[in-house]
Amino acid sequence: MKKVVTIGEIVVEIMATTIGDGFLEPISLMGPFPSGAPAIFIDQVARMGQPCGIVSFVGDDDFGRTNLNRLRQDGVDCSAIGVDPDRPTGSAFVRYRDDGSRDFVFNIRHSACASIAITAEAKALLAEADHLHVMGSSLGSGGTVTAIRESISTIKQRGGTVSFDPNIRKEMLGLSGMREALEYVFSETDLFLPSGDELYLFCNAATEKDALLQILSCGVTAVVIKRGAAGSSFFDAEGYVSMSGFEAEEVDPTGAGDCFGGALVTCWLRGMAPRDALAIANAAGALAVGKRGPMEGAATWDEIEQFLLTRQGSQ
Amino acid sequence: MKKVVTIGEIVVEIMATTIGDGFLEPISLMGPFPSGAPAIFIDQVARMGQPCGIVSFVGDDDFGRTNLNRLRQDGVDCSAIGVDPDRPTGSAFVRYRDDGSRDFVFNIRHSACASIAITAEAKALLAEADHLHVMGSSLGSGGTVTAIRESISTIKQRGGTVSFDPNIRKEMLGLSGMREALEYVFSETDLFLPSGDELYLFCNAATEKDALLQILSCGVTAVVIKRGAAGSSFFDAEGYVSMSGFEAEEVDPTGAGDCFGGALVTCWLRGMAPRDALAIANAAGALAVGKRGPMEGAATWDEIEQFLLTRQGSQ
Repeated sequence: MKKVVTIGEIVVEIMATTIGDGFLEPISLMGPFPSGAPAIFIDQVARMGQPCGIVSFVGDDDFGRTNLNRLRQDGVDCSAIGVDPDRPTGSAFVRYRDDGSRDFVFNIRHSACASIAITAEAKALLAEADHLHVMGSSLGSGGTVTAIRESISTIKQRGGTVSFDPNIRKEMLGLSGMREALEYVFSETDLFLPSGDELYLFCNAATEKDALLQILSCGVTAVVIKRGAAGSSFFDAEGYVSMSGFEAEEVDPTGAGDCFGGALVTCWLRGMAPRDALAIANAAGALAVGKRGPMEGAATWDEIEQFLLTRQGSQ
Repeated sequence: MKKVVTIGEIVVEIMATTIGDGFLEPISLMGPFPSGAPAIFIDQVARMGQPCGIVSFVGDDDFGRTNLNRLRQDGVDCSAIGVDPDRPTGSAFVRYRDDGSRDFVFNIRHSACASIAITAEAKALLAEADHLHVMGSSLGSGGTVTAIRESISTIKQRGGTVSFDPNIRKEMLGLSGMREALEYVFSETDLFLPSGDELYLFCNAATEKDALLQILSCGVTAVVIKRGAAGSSFFDAEGYVSMSGFEAEEVDPTGAGDCFGGALVTCWLRGMAPRDALAIANAAGALAVGKRGPMEGAATWDEIEQFLLTRQGSQ
C-alpha cells in the first residue's frame, strides 16, 4: 500500500462550550483536543489502515504528548515529529458565533510549529513515502514552506504524487509569501481539493466548469470539490461525478473537511472509482461532524462501511 | 500619593475545573482569566486607590483585550502596555492535583511578553513613578531582565524605592542568567517579600532570625515574610512584628500572594505601621483566595476594611 505523508502544524484545540462572541471574559471551555489540519487529515488516513506519517514539531508539554499519544494510537508514523525543548505546542481557541462563523485565538506561528524542518527523521520518512498531502493552512510560516518545498521535490523525484487542500482563511492570504507558496504547491499538485471559492484561487474563470477545465490544463490530474453538507464532486480527464452529502447531526463541523480529505486521498491512492471514493469521503465527513472535537470523529474503514450500509438507501 | 510601577508578564490563565493530573485528554476548563503575577499585583494596588501602572506587552487578540479591559477598569495606567501585532498574548493552563501541587502548560517566553522593553511609553510612565515592584517570575526572559535593570536605574535616580517578590518556581532557577538577575534585583531592593525558602535565596543562614539580620545588612530596609494561610511577619531595623492569617474558605489560592504583595506595598508606601500593614495585606490575601481566578479576588480598600471589621475579633 502507498504511504502518505503530510507536513505541517500539530496543535491543540480548546473550544468554547457556549455559542457567542470571542473570549473577552471567563467562559466554559473544553480541551485540549488533538488538532491541526494536517494532523486531522493524517489521523483519518491512519484510521482507514493506510500507511502514513507526519512531519511536525510539538512542545515538551502535555499538549504535545496528547497529540503524540493519539496519533501513535491511531497508527500514524510519528518518527518525524520533533519535540521542541523551548517552544510550547501550538494552540487554537475556537468559539462559534450565532451565525455559524467562528472566533479564534491562535498560537501557531511562534509555537513549536516554528521549528518544522526537514530533519534527518523527516528525510527518512519521506524516503519511504509515495504521496504528499499539503494543507494551505501550513503555508503561513516561512520555515514550513521551505520544508514543504523540499518534501514536494523529494516525492516528485521518487515518482510520487501530491494532493493539495488550500484550506485557508481569507485573512491568511495577506501574509507575506503566502500567495507565492500557494502557487508553487498548486503547480506541483496532482489531486486538488478546494472548497467554496478556493476553486477559483488559481484560475480566471467565472463558472465552475471553466474553472475545472482550466485547472486540469495546468497539469492537475483530478479535482475534488468539497461542498460540506451538500456533498462533493470529482472531475478529471474522464469526466465529472457528483454525490450529494449524507444527512448528519452536526455536533462540531471543525475538522470534517480534513477527514473528508484524508478519506478521499486514501481512496484515490487505492485506485477506487470516483463515485465510490466520493461516497466514502462524504461518509467520513458526515461521521466527523457527529463528534465534538476536530479529530474525534475520524472513522475507521469499518465504521465508514457500516455507515454506508445504513445510509445508502437515503441518498 | 506615590505612583507604583511594575514590569513583567501579562497572561491569561485557563484553569481546569477538576482536580487531577495534567492535560492529557479533553477536560472541562474555565477561562480566559486576566493573569500574570505583576498584573495581579498591580491590579490589587489599583483597587486600593494607589496610582499605578505596568510596563508589558499583550497580543492583538481577545486575551490581550480582556487583560487591558480589566486593568483599565480597575484604574491601572495602561499607557505602557504595548500591543504586539505578531505574537499572541501569553497563557498559562493550570490544573490542581490531589495533593495541592499544580500542573502547568505555559506559553510566556515566546508570547507577546517577549517584546517587553523600555519603549517611549514605558519611559514616560517611569518618569512619574516613585516605586518599582519586581516579580522574580518575570526574570525568565532576557529582554524583560534588561528592561527591569533600566527601570530600577531610572527609579533609583529619581530617589524612588524598589520592592521584590522572588516568586519563582524551582525549575526556573536553572534558567540561564536567572541567578544573576535575581541577585542584581536583590542588591537594589528596599522592601523584600519572600515566601517559604525564598528567605534563604540570598544569604547563608540556618535560621529565620539569622537570615533576616543578614538581609538587612545587605542594604534592604524591610523584609516581609509571606506565610500564606499562616499569616505574615515584618522585620526592619526597628524590630519584628508577626500577624497570624485570617481563616478563609480557599476557593482558588492562585494570585493570593500577589494580592498580598500589592496591598503590603501600598500600605508601606503610605507609611503605615507594620502591624496595620500586615493586617491589611493578610486580609487582601484572604479575600483573594475566596474567588476563582487569579485576579478576581483583588479587593478594594473598602472591602478590606469591611473584612477587618468583621474578622478582627476572630484573630
